Amino acid sequence: MRTIDWRDDHIVAVDQTALPDAVRMLDIHTVAELTDAIRRLAIRGAPALGVAGALGAALAAREPADVCRRQVEALRQARPTAVNLAWGVDRAMRRLPEGPAAVLAEALGILDEDVRANRALAARGADWLLAHGAARLNVQTHCNAGGLACVEWGTALGVVRALHERGALGRVYVDETRPLLQGSRLTTWELARLGIEHTLVVDSAGPSVLARGLADAVLVGADRIAANGDVINKIGTYPLALAAARAGIPFVVAAPESTLDPDSPTGQDVEIEIRDGAEIVHMGQIRTAPAGTPTLNLAFDLTPADLVTAIVTEHRVIHPAKGERP
Amino acid sequence: MRTIDWRDDHIVAVDQTALPDAVRMLDIHTVAELTDAIRRLAIRGAPALGVAGALGAALAAREPADVCRRQVEALRQARPTAVNLAWGVDRAMRRLPEGPAAVLAEALGILDEDVRANRALAARGADWLLAHGAARLNVQTHCNAGGLACVEWGTALGVVRALHERGALGRVYVDETRPLLQGSRLTTWELARLGIEHTLVVDSAGPSVLARGLADAVLVGADRIAANGDVINKIGTYPLALAAARAGIPFVVAAPESTLDPDSPTGQDVEIEIRDGAEIVHMGQIRTAPAGTPTLNLAFDLTPADLVTAIVTEHRVIHPAKGERP
Repeated sequence: MRTIDWRDDHIVAVDQTALPDAVRMLDIHTVAELTDAIRRLAIRGAPALGVAGALGAALAAREPADVCRRQVEALRQARPTAVNLAWGVDRAMRRLPEGPAAVLAEALGILDEDVRANRALAARGADWLLAHGAARLNVQTHCNAGGLACVEWGTALGVVRALHERGALGRVYVDETRPLLQGSRLTTWELARLGIEHTLVVDSAGPSVLARGLADAVLVGADRIAANGDVINKIGTYPLALAAARAGIPFVVAAPESTLDPDSPTGQDVEIEIRDGAEIVHMGQIRTAPAGTPTLNLAFDLTPADLVTAIVTEHRVIHPAKGERP
Repeated sequence: MRTIDWRDDHIVAVDQTALPDAVRMLDIHTVAELTDAIRRLAIRGAPALGVAGALGAALAAREPADVCRRQVEALRQARPTAVNLAWGVDRAMRRLPEGPAAVLAEALGILDEDVRANRALAARGADWLLAHGAARLNVQTHCNAGGLACVEWGTALGVVRALHERGALGRVYVDETRPLLQGSRLTTWELARLGIEHTLVVDSAGPSVLARGLADAVLVGADRIAANGDVINKIGTYPLALAAARAGIPFVVAAPESTLDPDSPTGQDVEIEIRDGAEIVHMGQIRTAPAGTPTLNLAFDLTPADLVTAIVTEHRVIHPAKGERP
């Protein structure tokens, strides 16, 4: 099953808000529908957003020029932090002078590339971990950097799958990932389908998992990687990096080259999305804080380069903590 | 309003599972009722547990000797990590040879002492912070170390109240404190009643609040403090200590002397309570993870002494990061 794909004349995508209760597919025929799906995180994950951006450009390319331009701009800005969304839009739109079919062809190319890039970085990540650790590893992950965040294979969870296929994986510790629970809803669901042993913990227990020696490495994806090696990823990544450094274990980021952003000199230059506080003070229909409680709902955090042991892409391994730069 | 008190012949206590929706009082006439209330966290917070233990001993003291002994043992073990519970039971029970009235008198003494100790450590904590920081502070806290965790004033939130009374408090950042949300349910409720500015964040955003310079100090309570200065507190405390060290701001623990445990040489010697995974995979009636997901529900974590800038009690300030020991 592909998380996002093109069928006949439109986008089909797994509705990630319905998981793990139901596997429901969205049929998306317009850029407005796509933008809405991205904003409410029905489609999420940096690599998947890159593909969504490109396929959205293919939808927009069928419209008159001014409508197309307006739609593409709204789509680019649907979520500000993940660099892949704008990257996918822009790359597909560069083919617009050749006509809508060329934009679609480029988008479908990006889609296929994502699968290949995931496979390549997963193998490289598994190689790196096995060269730098035990023959059999337990790992800690955060949020969802699996097939659901990409087209079908996964970045951080792609590395996990590669380790699993090699018989080199013990257990995966999964942070629940408040407020939207991508870890407890999506990552656990993927790992269960793959037959991979896993244990769910609350986010704030992740650092204790590392302090107790239960995991041999932290393995996460990224939403944007700055030119100095600073990593922007789901809120809750930074504490794991602090705890990994204290525990003396590797903190490894698995991401395609499209997540590297040469235009952001450091992580401080990246806009961090602040989402609606309703995500924190409600769980479904249940109110979890007094009415009117002020919130700061940071969607991402910044892990400084000196805490990042390795960034693994489809082409290379970069070691920011040793001073290497992407 | 006292969180826990003695009325005529029984214990009255705020049912903390009903907050913030309702302020409901529990009337507790037996040790079995009390033990149940403690296990399900209707009564919680290390200092409040010390008082509950002592008042529970007063209930048990009315029973025949063998029943009393059995009840007291069950009560002591209702929650294993907070040292105050067993401390309160044992201190009151030492008066048993003088009869039930003496046990009750001792328990009421502990109750009054808690209020005085809170006031004293709150003033000392505020003094320390103002001597070591700005004239007006923003602070980050975790879980609930307020009046609801004690008899009526609070430890970490007691210091916050003292700063507030002196006009030296800006804003309090409150971690929601998964899985049972003592931060979003209880701490926000207390701060709102006190008219103190506060902002709720998910637990994993706490370290980013510190990295962004939004808080000038971390201020937490403790469930047990080992002889070497290691601090055992609600899960999620350790990541804040790591982030405070990285940000170069003080990590301050406010707790009464009764939380110091000379019988635990280090934090590694303290039993960390592991609670039912149902607390993680459900929120009320909502299932938040696939059925059968394995969990590790650590209720507390260990903050090593070298990350603890100061421990403030009713009698003194100890600086474990500088090598001082309680």
